[in-house]
Amino acid sequence: MGDCSQLKTLSSAKAANFGIHSMINTLYLPELREMLAADDAVGLREFCSALHAGRTADFMEGLTPVEAWAVLRAADRPTRVKIFGFLEEEVQVSILESGEPTELAELIAEMPPDDRVDLLNEVDPAVVEKMLPLVPTEERRDILRLRAYPEGTAGSVMTTEVARLPETLTVREALEEIGRQAQDLETIYYIYIVGSENHLRGLVSARQLVTHLGKPSTLLSDLMKRDLVTVEATDDQETVAEKVADFDFLAIPVVDAEQHLVGIITHDDVIDVLQEEATEDAYLAGAVEPLEESYLATPLLHLTRLRAGWLTVLFGFALLTAIALESYGKALEAVWLVWFLPLVISSGGNTGSQSATLIIRALTTKEISPSDWLSIVWRELMMGALLGAFLSAIGYLAGYFLAPSPTAALVIPITLMLVVLCGTMLGALLPLLFKKMGLDPALMSTPFVAGIIDIVGIVLYMNVAIYLL
Amino acid sequence: MGDCSQLKTLSSAKAANFGIHSMINTLYLPELREMLAADDAVGLREFCSALHAGRTADFMEGLTPVEAWAVLRAADRPTRVKIFGFLEEEVQVSILESGEPTELAELIAEMPPDDRVDLLNEVDPAVVEKMLPLVPTEERRDILRLRAYPEGTAGSVMTTEVARLPETLTVREALEEIGRQAQDLETIYYIYIVGSENHLRGLVSARQLVTHLGKPSTLLSDLMKRDLVTVEATDDQETVAEKVADFDFLAIPVVDAEQHLVGIITHDDVIDVLQEEATEDAYLAGAVEPLEESYLATPLLHLTRLRAGWLTVLFGFALLTAIALESYGKALEAVWLVWFLPLVISSGGNTGSQSATLIIRALTTKEISPSDWLSIVWRELMMGALLGAFLSAIGYLAGYFLAPSPTAALVIPITLMLVVLCGTMLGALLPLLFKKMGLDPALMSTPFVAGIIDIVGIVLYMNVAIYLL
Repeated sequence: MGDCSQLKTLSSAKAANFGIHSMINTLYLPELREMLAADDAVGLREFCSALHAGRTADFMEGLTPVEAWAVLRAADRPTRVKIFGFLEEEVQVSILESGEPTELAELIAEMPPDDRVDLLNEVDPAVVEKMLPLVPTEERRDILRLRAYPEGTAGSVMTTEVARLPETLTVREALEEIGRQAQDLETIYYIYIVGSENHLRGLVSARQLVTHLGKPSTLLSDLMKRDLVTVEATDDQETVAEKVADFDFLAIPVVDAEQHLVGIITHDDVIDVLQEEATEDAYLAGAVEPLEESYLATPLLHLTRLRAGWLTVLFGFALLTAIALESYGKALEAVWLVWFLPLVISSGGNTGSQSATLIIRALTTKEISPSDWLSIVWRELMMGALLGAFLSAIGYLAGYFLAPSPTAALVIPITLMLVVLCGTMLGALLPLLFKKMGLDPALMSTPFVAGIIDIVGIVLYMNVAIYLL
Repeated sequence: MGDCSQLKTLSSAKAANFGIHSMINTLYLPELREMLAADDAVGLREFCSALHAGRTADFMEGLTPVEAWAVLRAADRPTRVKIFGFLEEEVQVSILESGEPTELAELIAEMPPDDRVDLLNEVDPAVVEKMLPLVPTEERRDILRLRAYPEGTAGSVMTTEVARLPETLTVREALEEIGRQAQDLETIYYIYIVGSENHLRGLVSARQLVTHLGKPSTLLSDLMKRDLVTVEATDDQETVAEKVADFDFLAIPVVDAEQHLVGIITHDDVIDVLQEEATEDAYLAGAVEPLEESYLATPLLHLTRLRAGWLTVLFGFALLTAIALESYGKALEAVWLVWFLPLVISSGGNTGSQSATLIIRALTTKEISPSDWLSIVWRELMMGALLGAFLSAIGYLAGYFLAPSPTAALVIPITLMLVVLCGTMLGALLPLLFKKMGLDPALMSTPFVAGIIDIVGIVLYMNVAIYLL
């Protein structure tokens, strides 16, 4: 990268102003546009290579896709590919859909295999079809192979650029060979030892090579670890991310059913997967079908549709509450009972939401499994009793002032106790049941659990009232 | 690590049975207990070194802490430290609290600096105080220094074992030096170039060193990147995790206010931080104060207290609904209006929960900021209108059958439309407001938003009814 002292505009004082994800950084936009207008190739090339590619991409955020591409064309090819990789996805797509196909095919050929496949999946298929024949054969085949893995599998997030060496090499030879290949590899820090037909035999880390520099003729076969944790290309990406997170790996090898090495998944891809899954879980907890794009980038009608599904289900539950209330018409003639209706319902819903949240998260992080149900039920019953007693006490106080008599007011605490106990039980058991049935427990969203408990709450309330009054 | 062919019990067929986070793996427990009883040091040492340390720890899960420590004592010291690092935290704490202090001080001295500080924070302070004087001076000072950083800061998750070299070294010298230091370093893949007093000057990657093996006399000062993304020791750990995630770094340097290198945070620590934050957000969304330990490990009374706070706030809102209903007593004499009360309330709550979920997540992932409020309001208004129209249509149908007249039934769709619009508005604006005020938008939990909208819903419903009937 070299010294950037020539580039006076990029003084470190100015660069210190920078923050990731900050609002669009307009610091260099005037200079960039001036350089573009003046066709100042030297200035643009310097801009591209002075900073970390991720920062450079941040500084380009205010440019149109056409301008951004014009800037990138001034950079040397490796730098161009790197900065392009850090641009916003919308900008990348727009560049691919509007630029010159031959140039872009060249860019695609040099992108990391996993990233380019993710990107091409977002681009207009007609454009992809026009571009693919221009990509060199080897890269084109690689793209087609990776695209064949369904989204959400290990195959769909892996990269095929792996450091592979035979076990017959020495430390010295291995370092030299890796040095030659480094340009094309995503990581050189884990080196996989393969036999014939890419059969995975072991792993040597760059750390081992470096520590054995003093004995350069050591054979890789004497260094390599043979007990490898691997994943299959068809495994769920979430499982893969958990394995890497648990073992603190830099990367994990992906194999086919016959233990042939087909790719690796690196730590940065794992972070992406974990963030993706956390976002998905957050959406589900709020009863929204997960979005594929960002909130602002998702078209309004599409987002409305993603919300309408769950909302309709929840509305269905709410209609059942209307029917339940209608059939218990008699009890409601005591109008003071109506005043407490939302209170009773929401108390059950809220404790249920809490229990569901606790259990779903503990299932997601694998702290508990459905086989723990007995101790979970016990814990939730105890907590339900304590929380119920507490809320009942406040509830009785309120009832004392609003109900016609202190005895009548007893309806409120008794119902609250029952409703809170039902809330904790249902909130805990519904996610466990879903898990047991092989479904995603996260589908038990907070509003969904609350919706079910609403109905139970009304039935309990009306029955307690009828019985007591 | 060498060949493990001698260890017949660890056949690969048996090992294939293994899954992370599976139930306790009892596969080797009988063999292990036999070896312990027979004091078979050779067998135990072999067990410890045959597999990846993370797997070995998994296989030891069924042992008591005392047994586990007895197994580990048979291993050579680096292996012992590695496996110990993968044991469950409860087991680690229990070993430290019950074992022989001198031996344990030795273990502590060899653990990664960040991990041992996290662990010591969980151990009985009296035990720590007895053990610390037995830890060698340098490590003890390091422990005390790291413990001084408040939890949640970069300083509290960083490690101090960093590869540091002066820029005057050549590639050849650097590789040799790193090879010598490797044993004590968490990563050798990023090498930090420091000047006097640890002043951070640049970064050279192991990849660069390996690719320059052909020119071994190249100076580090000619290779190093000078434009580094750094964090300060007092920065929030979440910010740090985001920077590493965004730039796909293996590690990020931590500096003090004068740019002195004080540590690094590696990719595996970043994954831990991201998982921690995702768990915290999930709890907040369900109106539970985040737990510090796992669901089953948190004492019942403590967990009840973590739930009671939010539950009381929500109960307070619900009490307001009772007061609102009491003051609108008149309208409720039409009992059919009561039947629709939960339906109207929950429709607002559910759309509000959805909006809050979308906005909170988009704020967390920095896709939006409070300055986007205008386009957010516009989007939520449009979605509210569409969803409201849809639910109103179904609601009118239900009202048509249950209300005394088709005109009276109009109360339902009109209220639903208003309530859904309010739901989307409040659900979107409340988190934005919290963010703007510098608070965590995640505090706007789904039940909290729903609780506020409940009150608004009742007021709207009663007013529409009074106006129309």
